[in-house]
Amino acid sequence: MQLLEAIRTRRAVKNFDPSHQLSEQEIRHLLDHAMLAPTSFNMQNWHFVVVTDQDVQDQLCAASWNQPHVKECSVTFVLAGALKGWEDMSKQLRKAPADVQNMFFGMVPQLYANNPQLERDEAVRSISFAGQHLMLVAREMGLDSCPMIGFDAAKVSTILGLPDDHPPLLMITIGKALQQARPRMGLLNYEDCVSVNRFGNHALHGEADDS
Amino acid sequence: MQLLEAIRTRRAVKNFDPSHQLSEQEIRHLLDHAMLAPTSFNMQNWHFVVVTDQDVQDQLCAASWNQPHVKECSVTFVLAGALKGWEDMSKQLRKAPADVQNMFFGMVPQLYANNPQLERDEAVRSISFAGQHLMLVAREMGLDSCPMIGFDAAKVSTILGLPDDHPPLLMITIGKALQQARPRMGLLNYEDCVSVNRFGNHALHGEADDS
Repeated sequence: MQLLEAIRTRRAVKNFDPSHQLSEQEIRHLLDHAMLAPTSFNMQNWHFVVVTDQDVQDQLCAASWNQPHVKECSVTFVLAGALKGWEDMSKQLRKAPADVQNMFFGMVPQLYANNPQLERDEAVRSISFAGQHLMLVAREMGLDSCPMIGFDAAKVSTILGLPDDHPPLLMITIGKALQQARPRMGLLNYEDCVSVNRFGNHALHGEADDS
Repeated sequence: MQLLEAIRTRRAVKNFDPSHQLSEQEIRHLLDHAMLAPTSFNMQNWHFVVVTDQDVQDQLCAASWNQPHVKECSVTFVLAGALKGWEDMSKQLRKAPADVQNMFFGMVPQLYANNPQLERDEAVRSISFAGQHLMLVAREMGLDSCPMIGFDAAKVSTILGLPDDHPPLLMITIGKALQQARPRMGLLNYEDCVSVNRFGNHALHGEADDS
C-alpha cells in the first residue's frame, strides 16, 4: 500500500471481528516495523505487551471502561514506557562508532538523571512514534486499529505485571473491521494550528485537505 | 512510495543542502498529512510552527546547541503542544453527531481539568503521532528529516513567541540530504522489549528485522 493511502485511510475503528486472529508472523511484521521508529539517542525506551489471550483481553476490557473493541480485536497492544531506558545503553549503541558511543554515554545520564518529567516525555514520544507505525502497518495488512488512553493505568499494570518504571502509556487495538469509522468529526483550519516563522503569523489559510 | 519502504528508509539525517527550499504547496502537503494523525477525542491539541526564515532558523540553531541541521534544512518544524486544546472543542466536533458531541463535551472536561500531567502527556502523544507522519511523508517526497528534542525550550518559546500553554515539545528538520545516515546503531531484541500476554513472558525471540 502507498504511504499516503495508509495515512488517509487510517481511522479509529471500534468494531472488530472477534473471530479474527493474527499469526505469529503477522505480529512480528507489526513489531518489526514499530521498532524502526526513531527514539532519542536510539534509546528504544519502550516495551510492547502483545495481548492475544482472551482472558487477559477481557480483563483489559474491564479496566478500559468496558470498551468492547479491547476484547473483540485480534491483538491488544499495550505500549509501556521504559522510563529507565537511558541507564544502560550498551545494547542500543553496540554498533555505533567509538566517538558516538563516548559522546552519548557522556550526555545521556546528564540529561535524564533526576529528570522524571523528561523521562516520561521521552517515553510518551517514543511509544507514540512506534504506535503510529503499528497503526499504519496494520492498514497495509488490510486491518484497522484504535489508539486509546481510556484505561485505568494502575489496573492495566496489575493485570500485565508491569513494573513501576514501565507505565502503560498507550493501548492500540488491531483487528479486522466489521464496520468502518464514522466520517471525520472536524479538522481544524490552518489558522487554528499552524503559524509561519512566529506564533500567530497565519501566512497559510484554509482547512487541511482530508480527502 | 510504499508505506513499508518509507518506514524502512526513514533515518535521522543531519546533513542537508542549505540551498534547497520547499514550496508553499510542498509545505501544505506535509501539514495536510500531519493533521490526519489521531488525537484523543479528535482534540488536535497541537500547533505547528513552520520556520523557513533564515534568521529565525539561525536563532533556533543557537538555541539547539548549534546543531547545524537546524539552520541548513529546508524547513524547521517546531511542534508545540496546545495544552488547553480540550477547553473548547466546538470546531473539532462540529461535524460529529449530536450524541457523540454530548458525550465528548461531558467527558473531556472531567478528564483534563486540573490534570496538568495528562494535558502534557496528551500533547506529547498528539504531536508525536503527527511528527511521525511528517517524517514519513518527507521520505515520500524524496526528502529526509531529523526529529530532535535537543533544544532549550524556554529560548525556543521566546524566539517564536509561543504562549506558556504552547510548549515546544519536538523539533523536526526536513530537507534534501547531502549525506545519508550512518548504519543503525543497534536494535534491541524482542526479549528486551516485547512480552506476550504478561510482562516478562518472552514468547517471541530474536532481533527485529531491520532490513
